[in-house]
Amino acid sequence: MNRMSVLEVLASTAKELDARDKLAYLRERFCIPAGRVYLDGNSLGVLPRAMTKGVVQLIETEWGEDLISSWNSHGWIDSPERLGERLAPLLGAGPGQVLCTDSISVNVFKLLATALDLQPDRRIILLEANEFPTDRYIAQGLAQLLGAQRCEVREVASEELIDSLTTDVAVVLLSEVNYRTGRRHNKRLINDAAHHAGVMTCWDVAHSAGAMPVDFDATGVDFGVGCGYKFLNGGPGAPAFLYVAKRHQNKVNQPLSGWLGHQSPFDFERSYTAANGVLQYQTGTPSILAMRALDIALDCFDGVSLTALRDKSVALCAFFIEALTTQCEFESLRVITPALAVDRGSQVAVCHPKAYAIAQDLIERGIVVDFRAPDIVRFGFAPMYNTFNDAYEALNALAELLKYETYLAARFQIRAKVT
Amino acid sequence: MNRMSVLEVLASTAKELDARDKLAYLRERFCIPAGRVYLDGNSLGVLPRAMTKGVVQLIETEWGEDLISSWNSHGWIDSPERLGERLAPLLGAGPGQVLCTDSISVNVFKLLATALDLQPDRRIILLEANEFPTDRYIAQGLAQLLGAQRCEVREVASEELIDSLTTDVAVVLLSEVNYRTGRRHNKRLINDAAHHAGVMTCWDVAHSAGAMPVDFDATGVDFGVGCGYKFLNGGPGAPAFLYVAKRHQNKVNQPLSGWLGHQSPFDFERSYTAANGVLQYQTGTPSILAMRALDIALDCFDGVSLTALRDKSVALCAFFIEALTTQCEFESLRVITPALAVDRGSQVAVCHPKAYAIAQDLIERGIVVDFRAPDIVRFGFAPMYNTFNDAYEALNALAELLKYETYLAARFQIRAKVT
Repeated sequence: MNRMSVLEVLASTAKELDARDKLAYLRERFCIPAGRVYLDGNSLGVLPRAMTKGVVQLIETEWGEDLISSWNSHGWIDSPERLGERLAPLLGAGPGQVLCTDSISVNVFKLLATALDLQPDRRIILLEANEFPTDRYIAQGLAQLLGAQRCEVREVASEELIDSLTTDVAVVLLSEVNYRTGRRHNKRLINDAAHHAGVMTCWDVAHSAGAMPVDFDATGVDFGVGCGYKFLNGGPGAPAFLYVAKRHQNKVNQPLSGWLGHQSPFDFERSYTAANGVLQYQTGTPSILAMRALDIALDCFDGVSLTALRDKSVALCAFFIEALTTQCEFESLRVITPALAVDRGSQVAVCHPKAYAIAQDLIERGIVVDFRAPDIVRFGFAPMYNTFNDAYEALNALAELLKYETYLAARFQIRAKVT
Repeated sequence: MNRMSVLEVLASTAKELDARDKLAYLRERFCIPAGRVYLDGNSLGVLPRAMTKGVVQLIETEWGEDLISSWNSHGWIDSPERLGERLAPLLGAGPGQVLCTDSISVNVFKLLATALDLQPDRRIILLEANEFPTDRYIAQGLAQLLGAQRCEVREVASEELIDSLTTDVAVVLLSEVNYRTGRRHNKRLINDAAHHAGVMTCWDVAHSAGAMPVDFDATGVDFGVGCGYKFLNGGPGAPAFLYVAKRHQNKVNQPLSGWLGHQSPFDFERSYTAANGVLQYQTGTPSILAMRALDIALDCFDGVSLTALRDKSVALCAFFIEALTTQCEFESLRVITPALAVDRGSQVAVCHPKAYAIAQDLIERGIVVDFRAPDIVRFGFAPMYNTFNDAYEALNALAELLKYETYLAARFQIRAKVT
């Protein structure tokens, strides 16, 4: 088999897999940019087709005509709660545990403070050393605010995590899917080990929600956060969400106690009385534009089985990884995403010393990917709209740029600010 | 002069004042709801005419087509800073001190924590007893988190404020314009007294920004917050802003240290290094839809003198107050907004035992106002688009409903959830 024919085989396999894809119809729910293969849905999901109409209706009718009365008449005031309940099934959460509000960063702060407050005799926030920066920085900020006597951040390597669940640990903060490598944790296993040691867990599912079942309730998660702009397609900077297991509700007050988390915000009482359950985790007034955009995006999940989505995600990544690891065209690339499907999310990370230049070259060829310093190219597969042909096109572009070393051209060597 | 002729005189005066209004052309920049007089711009500003087009362009081109690259190519990533600089002139702030981010509540938390951190030997957050709940609740939440040894909230009556600036007070948190009464503080006077006592000030200008010069720098403000959805017309739940005077920058880290406040967020470093100046007050990823909507709304201020806006606001309120306080039609109403223009914001509050029913009756008559428990009807005058005829129409409706006591009808007596 010569080199061309390897790609021909991949092309034909991709075509066949796409023809058999029972979720292929979902792609119609989105505006897919012409002439490009978008493999960055794990950073910013594509535009849902119904978005413009829905947002214009919000702007022109609800804001423009009905104005202040829309807080009630169009349910603006309830959107954090209502969107939380819409998100709950995607997170495997029963009712009354999910709220759509603020950013992941702000929500992590609320939840870590809650976990510490629930366990006054424990002072450690445990993290993986390669945790996503925003989660780590927020833990550091909280620890600094509280002082070393009350709180300290402890970072350990992934393989030391279970052994680090000591009696001084209040909470372990983890991303289910690592933003760089795509490695996925077994939440149940870690939750069980943590609970055995009296430790609570806080899971960041930014890189899993919307691409696979998340099973918060069934795996015993204590707290959870995630964002609306990746696999949920809620648009740039879409609102984040948080999850507080029923068993941890109504015991302590979260510290960002703004008026919307009050039991009766419009009574303007002098003292703060927390709202019931997860509702107290609201803080200030939410952007209704941002909330509505996410609401419209969630319509795309109507009637979609998360298991089927996960199956497609696994198949897309498997097709991609298998080609990368078995064909000599790609021998200069090292796949660092786990080989076992159960151990990975919905993205594939490959290492190369010239990763930045390769990512730029791919983008110029219309294959939109991410670079993650210092040496990772990240391919995100969004099972709602990516096709096997998308994966093939990425492989084809990779094979060509590696063969002709076009990525060595001077214009690809400059490191941009945002990548 | 009979009763009808009083209202005739008011109508003709209003017409004359409108004809002489040099800012009348600004009304064209907004969509004014037909058949209604909107006197609630101090709660949610009306829709700027350019909004739909601008937001659709963001959604369809920047998000839909350019996708992830827009974080750089369309300047999404810089929007908190860029919008901060656009807001700065409206706040009387020199460059590098204003940031557009999060909600007022979240920003108050960051700023109060900063003020405490800057003065480790002081532990009191001083508030007015009638402060807006979200500011008070957040101060309470911070105090609870830090513990009584480090922080305590002290509430005093407005008239005791100056005498309460004792050596244990770290920061005094005040609204420039009270959300209920419309009373306006003299910021310079309070800042001077506070600084004399070694106390820092944090001003909430939610009810002043966009309706009058705010003069942060000139009056010696230490910290400031405000929101984009009232007189700035940024839409429901528009992003808030914060101000940190240059002299307080780069000394301590604010506690909500998310990745966007990092010196180099996209290097994904392990430890938090605060960005320079006010930029460290960013936390998580902002909603770009919400940011853009505020950006478009701020275009309405292009070429507008804040002094001229304030003059019109004063004239609108004076016309309204004078009629209410001198004409017997309104004798059952008690104006609680200060009589002196310098002591009030851009709203007029009247008290009546049946205030809720009166507000509902007014709304049914197309005069959109606010009720504030237990007995206040709030008339907000947005000088960008309200007319003297709007004020007249409100007076006319008030006179009629008071004369015929229509507000006593059963349908006006039920208290709604949001008012």
